[in-house]
Amino acid sequence: MTTPRLNELDASQLAVRLARREIKAEDLAIACLERVAEREDDVHAFAHLDAVNALAQARALDAGPVRGLLHGLPIGVKDLFDTTDLPTGYGSTLYAHHRPVADAATVALCREAGAVVMGKTVTTEFAYFQPGPTCNPHNTQFTPGGSSSGSAAAVADHMVPLALGTQTAGSIIRPAAYCGVVGYKPSHGRVVGAGVKSLSPTLDVIGGFGRSVRDVALLGAVLTGDRRLFEWGEHGAPRIGLFQTPAWPQADVDTQNVWSLATQALATHTDACQDVAMPQNFGDLIQLQKDVMTFEMARSLSHERLRHREALSTQLVALLDAGMAISGATHDANLQRTADWRLRIDSLFERHDVLLTPSAIGEAPKGLEATGDPLFCRSWSLLGLPCVHLPFATGAMDLPVGLQLVGRFGEDHKLLAAAHWVHERLTR
Amino acid sequence: MTTPRLNELDASQLAVRLARREIKAEDLAIACLERVAEREDDVHAFAHLDAVNALAQARALDAGPVRGLLHGLPIGVKDLFDTTDLPTGYGSTLYAHHRPVADAATVALCREAGAVVMGKTVTTEFAYFQPGPTCNPHNTQFTPGGSSSGSAAAVADHMVPLALGTQTAGSIIRPAAYCGVVGYKPSHGRVVGAGVKSLSPTLDVIGGFGRSVRDVALLGAVLTGDRRLFEWGEHGAPRIGLFQTPAWPQADVDTQNVWSLATQALATHTDACQDVAMPQNFGDLIQLQKDVMTFEMARSLSHERLRHREALSTQLVALLDAGMAISGATHDANLQRTADWRLRIDSLFERHDVLLTPSAIGEAPKGLEATGDPLFCRSWSLLGLPCVHLPFATGAMDLPVGLQLVGRFGEDHKLLAAAHWVHERLTR
Repeated sequence: MTTPRLNELDASQLAVRLARREIKAEDLAIACLERVAEREDDVHAFAHLDAVNALAQARALDAGPVRGLLHGLPIGVKDLFDTTDLPTGYGSTLYAHHRPVADAATVALCREAGAVVMGKTVTTEFAYFQPGPTCNPHNTQFTPGGSSSGSAAAVADHMVPLALGTQTAGSIIRPAAYCGVVGYKPSHGRVVGAGVKSLSPTLDVIGGFGRSVRDVALLGAVLTGDRRLFEWGEHGAPRIGLFQTPAWPQADVDTQNVWSLATQALATHTDACQDVAMPQNFGDLIQLQKDVMTFEMARSLSHERLRHREALSTQLVALLDAGMAISGATHDANLQRTADWRLRIDSLFERHDVLLTPSAIGEAPKGLEATGDPLFCRSWSLLGLPCVHLPFATGAMDLPVGLQLVGRFGEDHKLLAAAHWVHERLTR
Repeated sequence: MTTPRLNELDASQLAVRLARREIKAEDLAIACLERVAEREDDVHAFAHLDAVNALAQARALDAGPVRGLLHGLPIGVKDLFDTTDLPTGYGSTLYAHHRPVADAATVALCREAGAVVMGKTVTTEFAYFQPGPTCNPHNTQFTPGGSSSGSAAAVADHMVPLALGTQTAGSIIRPAAYCGVVGYKPSHGRVVGAGVKSLSPTLDVIGGFGRSVRDVALLGAVLTGDRRLFEWGEHGAPRIGLFQTPAWPQADVDTQNVWSLATQALATHTDACQDVAMPQNFGDLIQLQKDVMTFEMARSLSHERLRHREALSTQLVALLDAGMAISGATHDANLQRTADWRLRIDSLFERHDVLLTPSAIGEAPKGLEATGDPLFCRSWSLLGLPCVHLPFATGAMDLPVGLQLVGRFGEDHKLLAAAHWVHERLTR
């Protein structure tokens, strides 16, 4: 048995050893950069990478005091986040050479906690559907998912232990599922958005990727400022609501198999798994999410829509035009329905601590011309609930599959503790 | 009786004449620029002004088709909004020469509707308390209020008919009150924030200033995309809840007088004015607003806090340090309390269409070293409710005083219709 290379260890294991000065941030950065050098020509996870800058950050951390929870950990930063030391392109040719004057607040918080910003990871065009060059690291003929394509791929391929992403429809959970890593989308409104390209204020959430639940909990604690996210003690089995959702008939055989696998495995550990009573009209949330997003994206991207229409993809222009055609009165009614649903869904959590539900239709689709369907993520984005994707199996094409757990609004610490419990039992 | 100069007319009157091509955008821009030339050395409303650029925009609008609701109207833009054609300083020396790559989405929406961006108006440092050079146009020894100091002063002084502002604590309503203009803060979440310096996502709202309720309704319709905001037909007397709030003992004699004046005047027009039953512990909202803002501002301004501490005012550094000392668990509890209050307060609007309540302690305080106290605005910012300041009297120092009307969440169109009805009766 070979000893794993430094870049193959989980963030939470590395964090302990870095804080104890058992390993150097520089050595870890070198191991990650070596992995990038080996694999980047196939994976294309990074939009911008500056090895010299990354090593300088690591050396400065080795030379100074232990900074915080992420001390010495290299992170990938989705290219939707502003960075002062690396170009920020938002996935659009329009911003190809843009160099922001300030770091996004969340990037600054990661730096404050001791993270080494390795590089900017590929995003789709303005985090919508037009893909970048990233391939699925498990098989480069398949999409990594999107929009946080490069972040999910870089973590899956051991290029970095952690990476930042954002989700408006399914941009964290879907690529996490396709790449086989843990993805965490916090409750809406718990992470400040300053310096991240804003698309839909009602839906946008900043989160990230790691290779274990503990890893994303560490990152989440830094992003939210809430240390409870990784400070769980011992805890018993959560009450798990099994919720296939009305979209279930669209789940393919791989998702059906992983569902059976998980529910059977969990049943051997707890009798607190119960089917969720389907809220009436829950299926409406998918279209409602699309409408809210379309209205708000059309307005948020007004500068690009009005000044640089020719530089946008056909797909994005169609979305923006559709958004401008939705009336304010309709949007107002949609936001009211959203608020009503957010209240209504909260009562589900009186009977269940977390909900187990699909993350994606199945394995990553073949081809790089699209990033897959966020079908199973849209409702949770609309509801603003915290979500964790748990990878634990493979499908027919030998690509990763898994399921997501959804928590009660604002109870991210309970969700992460439950996700850890569940993930341990599914990966034993 | 002299004919008013073009720059003295209300935005809504001008909009009609501009759309009919009865007046030229260029002539209006010239009239506004002449007023700026006369008065700017005393008022200091603008952080950046480019007359050549403003005239070029106006001429282009005169030469083309009528664009939209704001066709040909010059607007002042708070220097917290990104603009491509004018520097954007956020009220901080740190960003003195910053030139953003994109317009804020709301600036682009105003341009799309035909507005002429006249210049950037003075904001306090990052819209917190450290003042800029702006004076109150009614008496330059007094503060104009803040943080949207220049926008309120420019509209009050007839330099522009409309201006954009933002409110996190009391940054629209307070300067509107001190300068004697109509200020409008929309419901939280109804105006997209892309490209405006983000301080506190739970509280930040984009709105603006005009010299009549119709004026701010016009601007509001463009910002929210909801045409109902200015499309009121005939409407009867609203049911007005009289709500002095627990802070009332701090209201000075001018605010007491204007309260008596208003309630007596309204009583002659309707018997639907009733005292609001004080919700228990409503006074707690002021500290709660401070705590939510402090936590979120400390994180939103992380780049500035970590990289440029020496360039920040002592007052701001103290706020940011205090914010970093608040735990995530406490903030989580504060957000939960905020959500509970937002639900609870909604029931007040079963009995009242709008609430009449103070805007400020009294007239603008003397001196330019501070911008006054947002005491009477904090609770409404925390609750996310739409607010309109109505100027209609003067106080002991012959400076403007007035009151604000607060509407039900999401019912901005009803609030503006009611505000128009009330304002007409108070200014007859």
